[in-house]
Amino acid sequence: MAKRTVYCGEVSADLVGQIITLKGWVQKRRDLGGVIFIDLRDREGIAQVVFNPAHSKEAWEIADKCRSEYVIEITGELTYRDKEAVNPKMKTGEFEIMATDITILNTAKTPPFLIEDENNVGDEIRMKYRYLDLRRPKMTANLKLRHEITKSIRHYLDNTDFIDIETPYFGKSTPEGARDYLVPSRVHAGHFYALPQSPQIFKQLLMNAGFDRYYQIVRCFRDEDLRGDRQPEFTQIDMETTFLTPEEIQTMTEEMLAKVMRDTKGIEVTVPFPRISYDEAMARYGSDKPDTRFEMELIDIADVVKDVDFKVFQMALENGGQVKALNAKGAADKYSRKDMDNLGTYVSQFGAKGLAWLKVEEDGLKGPIAKFLTEVSDDLIKATNAEVGDILMFGADKPEVVAAALGAIRSRLGKELGLIDESKFNFLWVVDWPLFEYDEEAGRYVSAHHPFTQPKESDIELLSTNPAKVYAEAYDIVLNGYELGGGSLRIHKRDLQEKMFETLGFTKESAQEQFGFLLDALDYGFPPHGGIALGLDRLVMLLAGENNIREVIAFPKNGKAADPMTNAPSVVSPLQLFELNIDVTAIDE
Amino acid sequence: MAKRTVYCGEVSADLVGQIITLKGWVQKRRDLGGVIFIDLRDREGIAQVVFNPAHSKEAWEIADKCRSEYVIEITGELTYRDKEAVNPKMKTGEFEIMATDITILNTAKTPPFLIEDENNVGDEIRMKYRYLDLRRPKMTANLKLRHEITKSIRHYLDNTDFIDIETPYFGKSTPEGARDYLVPSRVHAGHFYALPQSPQIFKQLLMNAGFDRYYQIVRCFRDEDLRGDRQPEFTQIDMETTFLTPEEIQTMTEEMLAKVMRDTKGIEVTVPFPRISYDEAMARYGSDKPDTRFEMELIDIADVVKDVDFKVFQMALENGGQVKALNAKGAADKYSRKDMDNLGTYVSQFGAKGLAWLKVEEDGLKGPIAKFLTEVSDDLIKATNAEVGDILMFGADKPEVVAAALGAIRSRLGKELGLIDESKFNFLWVVDWPLFEYDEEAGRYVSAHHPFTQPKESDIELLSTNPAKVYAEAYDIVLNGYELGGGSLRIHKRDLQEKMFETLGFTKESAQEQFGFLLDALDYGFPPHGGIALGLDRLVMLLAGENNIREVIAFPKNGKAADPMTNAPSVVSPLQLFELNIDVTAIDE
Repeated sequence: MAKRTVYCGEVSADLVGQIITLKGWVQKRRDLGGVIFIDLRDREGIAQVVFNPAHSKEAWEIADKCRSEYVIEITGELTYRDKEAVNPKMKTGEFEIMATDITILNTAKTPPFLIEDENNVGDEIRMKYRYLDLRRPKMTANLKLRHEITKSIRHYLDNTDFIDIETPYFGKSTPEGARDYLVPSRVHAGHFYALPQSPQIFKQLLMNAGFDRYYQIVRCFRDEDLRGDRQPEFTQIDMETTFLTPEEIQTMTEEMLAKVMRDTKGIEVTVPFPRISYDEAMARYGSDKPDTRFEMELIDIADVVKDVDFKVFQMALENGGQVKALNAKGAADKYSRKDMDNLGTYVSQFGAKGLAWLKVEEDGLKGPIAKFLTEVSDDLIKATNAEVGDILMFGADKPEVVAAALGAIRSRLGKELGLIDESKFNFLWVVDWPLFEYDEEAGRYVSAHHPFTQPKESDIELLSTNPAKVYAEAYDIVLNGYELGGGSLRIHKRDLQEKMFETLGFTKESAQEQFGFLLDALDYGFPPHGGIALGLDRLVMLLAGENNIREVIAFPKNGKAADPMTNAPSVVSPLQLFELNIDVTAIDE
Repeated sequence: MAKRTVYCGEVSADLVGQIITLKGWVQKRRDLGGVIFIDLRDREGIAQVVFNPAHSKEAWEIADKCRSEYVIEITGELTYRDKEAVNPKMKTGEFEIMATDITILNTAKTPPFLIEDENNVGDEIRMKYRYLDLRRPKMTANLKLRHEITKSIRHYLDNTDFIDIETPYFGKSTPEGARDYLVPSRVHAGHFYALPQSPQIFKQLLMNAGFDRYYQIVRCFRDEDLRGDRQPEFTQIDMETTFLTPEEIQTMTEEMLAKVMRDTKGIEVTVPFPRISYDEAMARYGSDKPDTRFEMELIDIADVVKDVDFKVFQMALENGGQVKALNAKGAADKYSRKDMDNLGTYVSQFGAKGLAWLKVEEDGLKGPIAKFLTEVSDDLIKATNAEVGDILMFGADKPEVVAAALGAIRSRLGKELGLIDESKFNFLWVVDWPLFEYDEEAGRYVSAHHPFTQPKESDIELLSTNPAKVYAEAYDIVLNGYELGGGSLRIHKRDLQEKMFETLGFTKESAQEQFGFLLDALDYGFPPHGGIALGLDRLVMLLAGENNIREVIAFPKNGKAADPMTNAPSVVSPLQLFELNIDVTAIDE
């Protein structure tokens, strides 16, 4: 084999007149008046190769046998194309190679789909032939972007005193958080390792060990039911620091993300990113990860409607709930009564009993509930800044339900009404999270983030009396309505950590059994520390302009956590099970 | 909290006269005539802090309460020490900080061992308190070195067109190679994922997808019995390239390792590294990973002894075996007869029936077998370059046994006789490996590397007739007697891969069932490709001058694949097992 001179996609003017060698895949072969043209593709792009029997009959004959996706090596002179043959849409469209040599390195059957960006192939078939799917320029570009992003991140962290330290994938199963993936131990019968949901405790122990600044781009595992943006394994940019304030950690994260945007997208984002408290985010956007690329905020109209004779509003307010409105500007002629009924059905999944609404028309407010609001219609129009053509939609319920329902409506309308500027990258910090959520099913408080989160100093005394009112030194970073990541200061005092476990329902014994090693570690000079973890898959997805993280993962799993290519997971041999001291109690087909 | 000005270990002349803030751990507190001296430690080193009650009574009082491993923040002026107080052994030994403020950020119980390099603590206790063990300067330095090494590697690969691509940790269990770690699937009852022993097939598929140059620093898993340099999980520097020759891949690897040596050790190693064939390595060193930091090669003395009347030698030669000698220079007065008996016992584990030996004395060869060799003693002395004071040791058996026994003796004597220059880093390529090994137990050929290794073109016809004679396009990289990694060209043609599976004892059906997706992939324009994988743990271990990879892994497992700190692996709840559709058939205490 000769040496490749350059990637196909990188032939350029400085090589014109030289004999070059290219290697790649046949994208297309055409025969025009006895001359064969091959579009040769590699990861960097496409170059046009010309086989003229007048130059080399032998090469022409081999080229004539080439079919799509054959792997070939060609040698010839790089020349400028004739003016009329220049293809301005193609990066190398000015050039062609007059081939005098060609070697077929491998043949190919006709692929099950075209190797092009727009091929409308189903997800399962794409995954079954992932190696062909990845040949599509868009997929190649996505994985290259992924590498550019990790490179930029590593560059930032390597240059700001962070040390990349690997933590174990074989850890211990703990009862908090999502479901663990387990690995049976052969050596210890009946015992299991757990794959990490995150390296949380290990990175804290590294701070205890004095490493000061740790990072890792690390795989994590959660055995949860899958959704579009979830995979059984996902990659986390994991950072932890010692002696820093939340603001200092946030500033570092901002600098890192600003560098990523600059390095990979050529975009200058403004730092500092806006900061909004969790409570304000829920109040204004009905979401803890608001998409701030458009307005349409939730407006509290309790004051306006508190005296009207509309039972739904009255009941909500009397029960300590809220009445809030969304103004969908200019939506009136886009949403029929039937569309509004559909939205009503849509919000019911968030616990809302329905969706009250009004259209703003020349002669006032119209719609099913207009008659109840006649008296306050001027105030309502003023409060919501309503104009003719708008639709006002209302939520009246417990605050959580109002937020969930109107927040979901807001997201949906933002897309449907085209309010979102897709070129924008709106980063946002959501800070001051509650420390706990109440889990109705379990009948107890659970950690909003994880059990190692530092409560606000002033709230610590509420831990035993009113956990719901305890706020945390916790912060999430949001991009375009997606949670990119979250972090916090962590507890570094044993008594506080014990108190925390107690509040979460642990007994002294169960806390010691599950987390004894961490509690012990807190005895030996554990420094104040905190950090953040960002979802790499999601970050790449957003920067690639994709809607599903599968598009930025080389070999993802499908919606059933399976790989249609290798058929993993699969049945294993009885010997394997025997050695692991386990039996299977059921086998799916 | 105030901001830290600088790491303790990095206070320097340009800060003298300034008020600085340091944060760290109390290494030592001394009270000298009413003035308190604290050695304050962080990851970069130690600084001396002085608390003089004349400067601040309040700070002095707090300092007086500090104990070892307390976490403190101090502020004061950096000054030069008095001449007589300068400590030239300490990086910051010229300076001290006259503290006026101190805050205790956390207290500490007395640690179970001293935070010093030489503390003679057992491995289990070190692992149980790993966060304290890692505070020791040597361990901190080891993990920092690890990061420097990966940084250097990434830098090289990022700048030579390699793309870092993540491959799945949830793969499919395959029958070749070592034992897989398995992960039960909850969604697919009775099915299991396998954790990767290496991303071998995925990286080949990435070459098929056209990525041209792939790398990943990736965790791999093998459920094998543990040894000093093995862990259940280990980290691999994994590379794969398209269209390159073995020599080109080796050259790249050399450049990368030379850069690592330069960047992290300040050592210029000579490239190209020496290359030696597998057969020659076995013949000269009795090892496929010879330590070339010392000579003492195996000498074939068949010609010398072929006619002597010594049954052991005769039998060996008659049965197609070898007779070889090692000359342990100057060993005669170091090894007693009893020592030699011990060496005889030692080699028996390699299948040798004993160890014949002779001492070279003024008046000739002496020892148990001297009488048989009187006639050839001059020739023997000449062939082995023997001098008075040497010991000659002999192996006479099948070539494998001679190599194994004398190779092991050579390694052991190299260390015991102090022949090894520990400052040397001897890289070596061992090339032209056999494609197969014969597995006596299984009664069939198994892959020496893996079933995707490309046979030498000229040997392909021997695949069905004489697999033992087939050589591979395979190469190992060796450093100081350790296998650092191995690579090969891979098969890129379907018919050859099928032939390979056939030789390994697969039926057409079992090959299709296990590796059908790879065989199918070979149909669609699979390019010629090859690569290499290096063991990161071992590389760091050797560069750190350690003898066990545990010393360069933050949280390793012990010899029983368990973590004494977290107690992983552990028993899990019945609900977890129920959800995974498995039962355990035995439970260890």
